[in-house]
Amino acid sequence: MTGQAIDVVGIGNAIVDVLSQADDAFLEAQGLPKGAMTLIDAARAEELYSAMGAGVEMSGGSAANTMAGLASLGGQGAFIGKVRNDQLGGIFRHDIRTNGLIFDTPAATDGLPTARCLIFVTPDAQRTMNTFLGASVALGPEDLDAELIARAKITYLEGYLWDAPAAKAAFVQAAKIAHEAGRRVALSLSDPFCVERHRESFLDLVEAHVDILFANEVEICSLYKAADFDDALQHVRGHCEVAVLTRSEHGAVICSGEEIHVVDAEAVARVVDTTGAGDLYAAGFLFGYTRGKNLHDCGRIGAIAAAEVISHFGARPEVALAALVDKHLGHT
Amino acid sequence: MTGQAIDVVGIGNAIVDVLSQADDAFLEAQGLPKGAMTLIDAARAEELYSAMGAGVEMSGGSAANTMAGLASLGGQGAFIGKVRNDQLGGIFRHDIRTNGLIFDTPAATDGLPTARCLIFVTPDAQRTMNTFLGASVALGPEDLDAELIARAKITYLEGYLWDAPAAKAAFVQAAKIAHEAGRRVALSLSDPFCVERHRESFLDLVEAHVDILFANEVEICSLYKAADFDDALQHVRGHCEVAVLTRSEHGAVICSGEEIHVVDAEAVARVVDTTGAGDLYAAGFLFGYTRGKNLHDCGRIGAIAAAEVISHFGARPEVALAALVDKHLGHT
Repeated sequence: MTGQAIDVVGIGNAIVDVLSQADDAFLEAQGLPKGAMTLIDAARAEELYSAMGAGVEMSGGSAANTMAGLASLGGQGAFIGKVRNDQLGGIFRHDIRTNGLIFDTPAATDGLPTARCLIFVTPDAQRTMNTFLGASVALGPEDLDAELIARAKITYLEGYLWDAPAAKAAFVQAAKIAHEAGRRVALSLSDPFCVERHRESFLDLVEAHVDILFANEVEICSLYKAADFDDALQHVRGHCEVAVLTRSEHGAVICSGEEIHVVDAEAVARVVDTTGAGDLYAAGFLFGYTRGKNLHDCGRIGAIAAAEVISHFGARPEVALAALVDKHLGHT
Repeated sequence: MTGQAIDVVGIGNAIVDVLSQADDAFLEAQGLPKGAMTLIDAARAEELYSAMGAGVEMSGGSAANTMAGLASLGGQGAFIGKVRNDQLGGIFRHDIRTNGLIFDTPAATDGLPTARCLIFVTPDAQRTMNTFLGASVALGPEDLDAELIARAKITYLEGYLWDAPAAKAAFVQAAKIAHEAGRRVALSLSDPFCVERHRESFLDLVEAHVDILFANEVEICSLYKAADFDDALQHVRGHCEVAVLTRSEHGAVICSGEEIHVVDAEAVARVVDTTGAGDLYAAGFLFGYTRGKNLHDCGRIGAIAAAEVISHFGARPEVALAALVDKHLGHT
């Protein structure tokens, strides 16, 4: 069976989320930029965890969440990322495999513990993330399964990985393997601060290696230092095959060559926690794309998946997304 | 400040829950008795975890849940229980301390890992629990903080602890310390299978050491091999100072000497997960009791706390119970 195509292989940080409720005063007291992802070291992680209320632990990680979403939609997926051989690493591995995903990256046997992300959810449903990358920065080119990448219609990379040197190298090599096999490469910009830190190299990466780009409004504006969304839109056109630009409750704009689609967001009765919204949008879009749907339908599936994940606590779907999509879209 | 009274010290298994949704067919295929707590060994825990879907990890443990509820109600509490010095042990310690509870039992530095409970929640909101006791069975008399127990108005013991020999000894010794200090001892029977396994010794324990007994209908009937609830009620009267007998949606019956109160259950819009219902009932009752409320009001507070915890996934309160009680009962 080796050599059989799979839909998507995600490469990203292998993280366990620790979710807790907090108010704005807490964020302020701790100096946390609301809505952003901040990288923290072990000492700060310890300090912040001590200040944090009782938590709920769930597997997370941006690309890993996307892969969990893809599997829930009925797609065949795989994940490449680095955990340590510790209890949180075991939880991460169990959860991603039990979702039906391939995950065979060997755990690190020494060095830092499995990555964790301390997430504070405020009453307005915004999430503020603080990531201790731990073992996940140990991911390097040697962890890539070239045969697996060559089998995947799409190799999906999370921008967060662009912070660690070895992971960056893995990133570029994975893109090369994919393209040599005639496959597509997708990238999510992940976070405006991440884009700020690495603007030039992200521009090079998009230009040289990326076929499908995911970004939200702030990220795409930051990437091109654009004055507004429309300005950013004009910049990105022509720089990659497909650009998927998400705008929260304002829906998404998808452009490819001369095609432009504006796709509305899916209605949500009550937004509880926006953690994972972008990850699940990407899951839905990629699922549709690998199934040959038109770009508008790809966007619709993304919107449906994102709407599910923001309607509850946590970054992974709680219901079978395949059934949800059938209900909303029918068997298209 | 040592010597200052606290409300309750709970002694129990220090467990991290792993919650997952499952259907009846899964329980049947795995041979799991629905609604019960089954003790499992390391190998079975591994096997069952492999078969389990993606989980959510949260601190649990029966008496520990009760203490978390007590703290949420505004009570001063402490917990005694054994974790290993591993990641799950760290999570357990963080969560209970961040609730404002005293927890100073040293972690085991070798032996089995921190206990975990694999919980399957079926669509009817029932929970089926499978506990790998791990490090928690290492709790022994040497872990008791006699000064802490003497300071607590009530020492609260979970029946689940009665499965491990060293813990049993700790249990009896704690009761003695409490009584010598002129304090009260409470016990929860925890589980009908637990009562089955240890009926005779539980009867001795209740007779010799317990002032306040918590049991649900099945447990109290099992303890006295009673034909029905009313029969069990007649047996328990006079065998301990207060008996708190919970009957799920049928409310609770509380008896003490000649006093008998029938207290209705609190209405719940939608029961999501019954995990922790009994633990939180005990929390509410004990909080009221330590504050000198009458038995009917103690039962009402128990019902309010239980109603909150069954309205969401997980065994610990999601909102400040003190505010909830104020809203329902007023400042009594």
